[in-house]
Amino acid sequence: MRILIINGPNLNLLGAREPELYGSQSFEEFLATLKVDGAQIDYYQSNIEGELITAIQESRLHYDGVVLNAAAYSHTSVGIADAVTAIDIPVVEVHISNIYRRENFRHFTYLASRCVGTIAGLGLKGYELAIEFLVANFSKI
Amino acid sequence: MRILIINGPNLNLLGAREPELYGSQSFEEFLATLKVDGAQIDYYQSNIEGELITAIQESRLHYDGVVLNAAAYSHTSVGIADAVTAIDIPVVEVHISNIYRRENFRHFTYLASRCVGTIAGLGLKGYELAIEFLVANFSKI
Amino acid sequence: MRILIINGPNLNLLGAREPELYGSQSFEEFLATLKVDGAQIDYYQSNIEGELITAIQESRLHYDGVVLNAAAYSHTSVGIADAVTAIDIPVVEVHISNIYRRENFRHFTYLASRCVGTIAGLGLKGYELAIEFLVANFSKI
Amino acid sequence: MRILIINGPNLNLLGAREPELYGSQSFEEFLATLKVDGAQIDYYQSNIEGELITAIQESRLHYDGVVLNAAAYSHTSVGIADAVTAIDIPVVEVHISNIYRRENFRHFTYLASRCVGTIAGLGLKGYELAIEFLVANFSKI
Amino acid sequence: MRILIINGPNLNLLGAREPELYGSQSFEEFLATLKVDGAQIDYYQSNIEGELITAIQESRLHYDGVVLNAAAYSHTSVGIADAVTAIDIPVVEVHISNIYRRENFRHFTYLASRCVGTIAGLGLKGYELAIEFLVANFSKI
Amino acid sequence: MRILIINGPNLNLLGAREPELYGSQSFEEFLATLKVDGAQIDYYQSNIEGELITAIQESRLHYDGVVLNAAAYSHTSVGIADAVTAIDIPVVEVHISNIYRRENFRHFTYLASRCVGTIAGLGLKGYELAIEFLVANFSKI
Amino acid sequence: MRILIINGPNLNLLGAREPELYGSQSFEEFLATLKVDGAQIDYYQSNIEGELITAIQESRLHYDGVVLNAAAYSHTSVGIADAVTAIDIPVVEVHISNIYRRENFRHFTYLASRCVGTIAGLGLKGYELAIEFLVANFSKI
Amino acid sequence: MRILIINGPNLNLLGAREPELYGSQSFEEFLATLKVDGAQIDYYQSNIEGELITAIQESRLHYDGVVLNAAAYSHTSVGIADAVTAIDIPVVEVHISNIYRRENFRHFTYLASRCVGTIAGLGLKGYELAIEFLVANFSKI
Amino acid sequence: MRILIINGPNLNLLGAREPELYGSQSFEEFLATLKVDGAQIDYYQSNIEGELITAIQESRLHYDGVVLNAAAYSHTSVGIADAVTAIDIPVVEVHISNIYRRENFRHFTYLASRCVGTIAGLGLKGYELAIEFLVANFSKI
Amino acid sequence: MRILIINGPNLNLLGAREPELYGSQSFEEFLATLKVDGAQIDYYQSNIEGELITAIQESRLHYDGVVLNAAAYSHTSVGIADAVTAIDIPVVEVHISNIYRRENFRHFTYLASRCVGTIAGLGLKGYELAIEFLVANFSKI
Amino acid sequence: MRILIINGPNLNLLGAREPELYGSQSFEEFLATLKVDGAQIDYYQSNIEGELITAIQESRLHYDGVVLNAAAYSHTSVGIADAVTAIDIPVVEVHISNIYRRENFRHFTYLASRCVGTIAGLGLKGYELAIEFLVANFSKI
Amino acid sequence: MRILIINGPNLNLLGAREPELYGSQSFEEFLATLKVDGAQIDYYQSNIEGELITAIQESRLHYDGVVLNAAAYSHTSVGIADAVTAIDIPVVEVHISNIYRRENFRHFTYLASRCVGTIAGLGLKGYELAIEFLVANFSKI
Repeated sequence: MRILIINGPNLNLLGAREPELYGSQSFEEFLATLKVDGAQIDYYQSNIEGELITAIQESRLHYDGVVLNAAAYSHTSVGIADAVTAIDIPVVEVHISNIYRRENFRHFTYLASRCVGTIAGLGLKGYELAIEFLVANFSKI
Repeated sequence: MRILIINGPNLNLLGAREPELYGSQSFEEFLATLKVDGAQIDYYQSNIEGELITAIQESRLHYDGVVLNAAAYSHTSVGIADAVTAIDIPVVEVHISNIYRRENFRHFTYLASRCVGTIAGLGLKGYELAIEFLVANFSKI
Repeated sequence: MRILIINGPNLNLLGAREPELYGSQSFEEFLATLKVDGAQIDYYQSNIEGELITAIQESRLHYDGVVLNAAAYSHTSVGIADAVTAIDIPVVEVHISNIYRRENFRHFTYLASRCVGTIAGLGLKGYELAIEFLVANFSKI
Repeated sequence: MRILIINGPNLNLLGAREPELYGSQSFEEFLATLKVDGAQIDYYQSNIEGELITAIQESRLHYDGVVLNAAAYSHTSVGIADAVTAIDIPVVEVHISNIYRRENFRHFTYLASRCVGTIAGLGLKGYELAIEFLVANFSKI
Repeated sequence: MRILIINGPNLNLLGAREPELYGSQSFEEFLATLKVDGAQIDYYQSNIEGELITAIQESRLHYDGVVLNAAAYSHTSVGIADAVTAIDIPVVEVHISNIYRRENFRHFTYLASRCVGTIAGLGLKGYELAIEFLVANFSKI
Repeated sequence: MRILIINGPNLNLLGAREPELYGSQSFEEFLATLKVDGAQIDYYQSNIEGELITAIQESRLHYDGVVLNAAAYSHTSVGIADAVTAIDIPVVEVHISNIYRRENFRHFTYLASRCVGTIAGLGLKGYELAIEFLVANFSKI
Repeated sequence: MRILIINGPNLNLLGAREPELYGSQSFEEFLATLKVDGAQIDYYQSNIEGELITAIQESRLHYDGVVLNAAAYSHTSVGIADAVTAIDIPVVEVHISNIYRRENFRHFTYLASRCVGTIAGLGLKGYELAIEFLVANFSKI
Repeated sequence: MRILIINGPNLNLLGAREPELYGSQSFEEFLATLKVDGAQIDYYQSNIEGELITAIQESRLHYDGVVLNAAAYSHTSVGIADAVTAIDIPVVEVHISNIYRRENFRHFTYLASRCVGTIAGLGLKGYELAIEFLVANFSKI
Repeated sequence: MRILIINGPNLNLLGAREPELYGSQSFEEFLATLKVDGAQIDYYQSNIEGELITAIQESRLHYDGVVLNAAAYSHTSVGIADAVTAIDIPVVEVHISNIYRRENFRHFTYLASRCVGTIAGLGLKGYELAIEFLVANFSKI
Repeated sequence: MRILIINGPNLNLLGAREPELYGSQSFEEFLATLKVDGAQIDYYQSNIEGELITAIQESRLHYDGVVLNAAAYSHTSVGIADAVTAIDIPVVEVHISNIYRRENFRHFTYLASRCVGTIAGLGLKGYELAIEFLVANFSKI
Repeated sequence: MRILIINGPNLNLLGAREPELYGSQSFEEFLATLKVDGAQIDYYQSNIEGELITAIQESRLHYDGVVLNAAAYSHTSVGIADAVTAIDIPVVEVHISNIYRRENFRHFTYLASRCVGTIAGLGLKGYELAIEFLVANFSKI
Repeated sequence: MRILIINGPNLNLLGAREPELYGSQSFEEFLATLKVDGAQIDYYQSNIEGELITAIQESRLHYDGVVLNAAAYSHTSVGIADAVTAIDIPVVEVHISNIYRRENFRHFTYLASRCVGTIAGLGLKGYELAIEFLVANFSKI
């Protein structure tokens, strides 16, 4: 099974930015520790909304599932949500921090109703659980 | 590690009620298939808000973590949320269905900001992932 | 045809409480006068939301229709509304007083969209009309 | 007892329009089947708000009660509501479909707080129940 | 100077309807007592929104000013407001009762911003004052 | 193909009323210049909401499509919207002015979701384009 | 009859401030031209909310009626509104400009529901009409 | 004089739960120190909304006044508020913490308008002051 | 212990104004009956918001606690709230009437979150209880 | 006349994405069939908001009109709206689907008030009609 | 050039009140350090809204510009905003703290749209920059 | 000291676009005139949100302060706001026009609460004042 992790704006600063919210590990360090049986994991990050849209569109050609943390764009981007709807592979939404403890505008995401489901507040572990779900789900087909 | 799963109102009908939303497996059948290394799993269900409050209060004496699906009360109960805040063991919120695809009043939960994190829309698999998180988290301490 | 009337909180005080809104007859006195051809009428009352949920759940096993006046819980209980959705016998919502002349929070009920229909403001006569509807509807099947 | 049924806009299309919501019987066919002991039933329909206002005003001179389904105007007409308030015979509001399952703007009616009570979602049977209430109420005086 | 008084729905019942709000004098009785130096006063009333629109449109051909009490339509009619904007003779809005002491939906009128000004709560005297304003204003030209 | 253009309140003043918004041509003058291949165009105007409802209802018997500019009623009339839903010929909504540059209450129309589509702000040309769409659409059937 | 005109903040600048809204006449010049049969007119102005409260309180001892233009405080002062309620002589609210054509926050006044009635948009003439109303009303007692 | 103190959900944890908000004294310890001349004080606590409703209903038979801290249910329970309205002995609402410094949903209580008055933010002392008020009030009768 | 009672606008009319809300006793008469062991009570009243701000500012120099009934300004004055925050002696908010039974705009006060706590609806007795709290609190230090 | 069609995010998937909403024709196929007398049509598409802004800015140098379907960005992009305002050639907004039948957030566009007008719900035909309008409009100059 | 600095309520406590927000320097100490080439700086402070209105009104007679920090009144005073509009010398709004990081009600000011511009969050330095702007602006005339 | 000025979308058109709002000077012309003692000023502009995010992220490596005018993105971009929070050098927000006099959606910026402070409405002079603040602030460290 091929899975693409897509990270949105400012997640390239992970480990450096607001460690009390996001921890002190960079995403690359985390990826190195991430091993999931039966899944090939690729990774894409961009700060540009339109590039994330294109990445989601193209994922339908090369992957069986997507783990998407659109970060700030989760709360403002109809375009990314439309891209998720436009493809027919499952997408799981992940947020590292507990977005419901933060500003009001982070409590709503355009993505939640478009993705299969959402994992929020469980740190980097959330990515691993999302992949585990996709693999379990894939094996059912 | 001892973990208590607490289910709220109408989840006693699981498998019978609205299978397109909740699947056709009863929770007892699901529990029988659930095996997590290094964790003893107990289960409690009630339709009564106040009994759920009491169960959460008492869980702090006998458990190391709670997986909580308060169902309908998630959206209306300040009392259950206060109970989660009152105890000092970690609680993970789980919803079987994708609550963000349903009625507006289900998009908000009083629990989300009180729990460590939330897993929604991943079916009964969500309970397993929540337990996995609690076990991983526990082993860090 | 077997019909269950379910009354919610404070309706046990009927006849004593706010007679200008609810009249001076107790519900038991009213039941004694209620005779509907071709229907066996049973009655349940509780002040506890979760017990009302359980009563609705169990009604699907023993009755062909429910007349439900959830009183105060009509306006706040997602759990009772979910129970109505979970069963497949018809439920008619009844309110003794005209809820649209009272406080704003009484104008909305979680139940109205889940029940077959609503009768409000017609006093205790509303229960009789609801039963009459259920009987007429039942005979069509 | 003399009772006037007043129907508002588009109800002249009953039986033809959206049968899944309104059934396939025209109102005239329904009236032919409607027999209520001790009541003379008359019927008026108009698509024009002001004509409905006039009909309600004049009903106070010739009738003992009104069954009013103002249809679309229920949600927008202060003028019809004022006419109901201006007369001193009882008016019962009826809606054929369950307005609480439809668009948000149909959940509120200006009439609900002005009429004695409301029956919604019980189909054409609702008119019969409303008349039955008016007759029972009339005999009390 | 020629002035047209236009009254909206239910004002034909004046004197009979809710006398605690509107007094016990019919509008015709009031007109008989109304004498304003230097002004010919005509009167039109309709319960039909579209007829009021037409009356306002045509007033521009025969009158130098309008006193408009659109009653219930004041709060809901964009069409009457558009008619006021479409003509170039001055229109003064009058309300007999104090609309700001009544239901919330009466606090806003589509007409207030379109008319020269508003007089509310001063009873039938308000019509007289409105005419007096129009006459004084007319003599300035 | 037979097409009915229906115009709502105050559009009888076109050419005279607010020319900066609506231009200086009357609708009759415009109609004289309007020639569409393969379509017979009829025209109806009324200031009365209920008459517009009736016209839409009856259009289903004599026409293959409707171009509807309900003007002020677009923003307030559930009844006209219901009539559009009740018929099964296509209706295109037209607004001469750009309603999104005007008062907030003009930004919403009850009709937009009921009609096939909407053309706004393109002046009288909008009617011609709407007819062109209906003709093109008709020829596909 | 003794009447007190009370003017609120910035009305001391009348004639100098925003003449397109308020005209070019100072209030003192206007008062010199104001003659009402059977009424003694006094005048008070302050920029200080609390002094206006005190003036209204004390007016009950020396006057039979008040004409109140609280200007900016109309929209923000609960204290002035409470003072109007606390006295038992009639108060008429006056606004020189048409407050419904201006900013949204000017459309609501705390005073409108406390005063007998409101005159808005009729310029300085509004004061004269308010006095005329008070005199006519007084003579009825 | 007989007074019943009724405490709602999670107040059984007082002294243990969030001591920075609620102090470190259990309610039982506090009761032991509470002595009010001329009053017999009883105490009831439950986590179950419906049991609190029943306790309030029954208090009318055995007590002359109630001190009610419904805790979390204050903000969500129409049923408890209805029970307060249904009895005719005075009820004083008490909150230990300053609810206006906490989450928005705690700023509103359904009880405030139904009780005689409210004391909030004065710690356990608030119960003593509420009793003192009830005793002083009782002696006036 | 030195305590200052500060009363806001219109409370100088106490005993005369709206006795059904505020009773028939003037505040001076009440003060004469008020004796609290161990506390010197001073009193200040003003109708002017800025003078109340200054009084609160200066109270920090001469008093150990303040009882504040800002009346109408409670609901509109950020300035008084800021003054309470600016001083470091405890302030208790008092309202004579039950503000939660009155107009919506009285349900919110800028002061509630700034003061130690609030007593509302307990009449003039509320001042005495507030002082009692301050004295008890003071003796703990 | 030179016209630029600008399409926003996900419209590169046209024909593949959600065909029930958008049809099964790709935009390139549609362009091949589009012939408008007297107009040279160019086409630009991007998923990136800022590139769309730049394209609109530059269109003012090379084109006489723009047809703009900003898709998802229509509802969220102030920047694209500002670009439309910044240029002085006419822009017509087009939406393929009827945005008023879809999610609430699609009912508002930042562009509607900035463009000359809007065509929505008429499928790909809408582009052709928009061009026709621009050509007709251009020939008037 | 003559410039008046006007400070509103509680700014007389600067240096003493909430130093983490406002610093520990009194405004008089700050003024002593403030030297701006080519400008004579005067200073006025009041806690009374009406006195600030008067000061702004009179500034037009003696000054060429105003620096205004209305503090708490910024968020509630229509009267001060009206005074700014009534004069024709430039006014710059200054806030010492970052009002957008504080309570919601501080995010809006009635003054922002009336003043030339706003400087917020830059401490006492903000006054100096405002003066610098006024001087630069003045020299352009 | 090294300072980076970052300008957002459409500011590349400065001098050409809406000169009544933004003046007729291009930003490059302005920069040529800008000389601040003790500061090296660099400049970056992009129409692409993600590029602005990256520019802010990277500024932390090469600069001691940022002056940020995110233009249209100020009101919609959580991502830019998050970037400001993620870096630890001071950022001052600047708007050329008075955003509080423009459309409602421009009154809120996601940036205001994240930046040190805001300068709005002072034209290009605002950039100079922001730099002056940063320099003064820098010299304090």
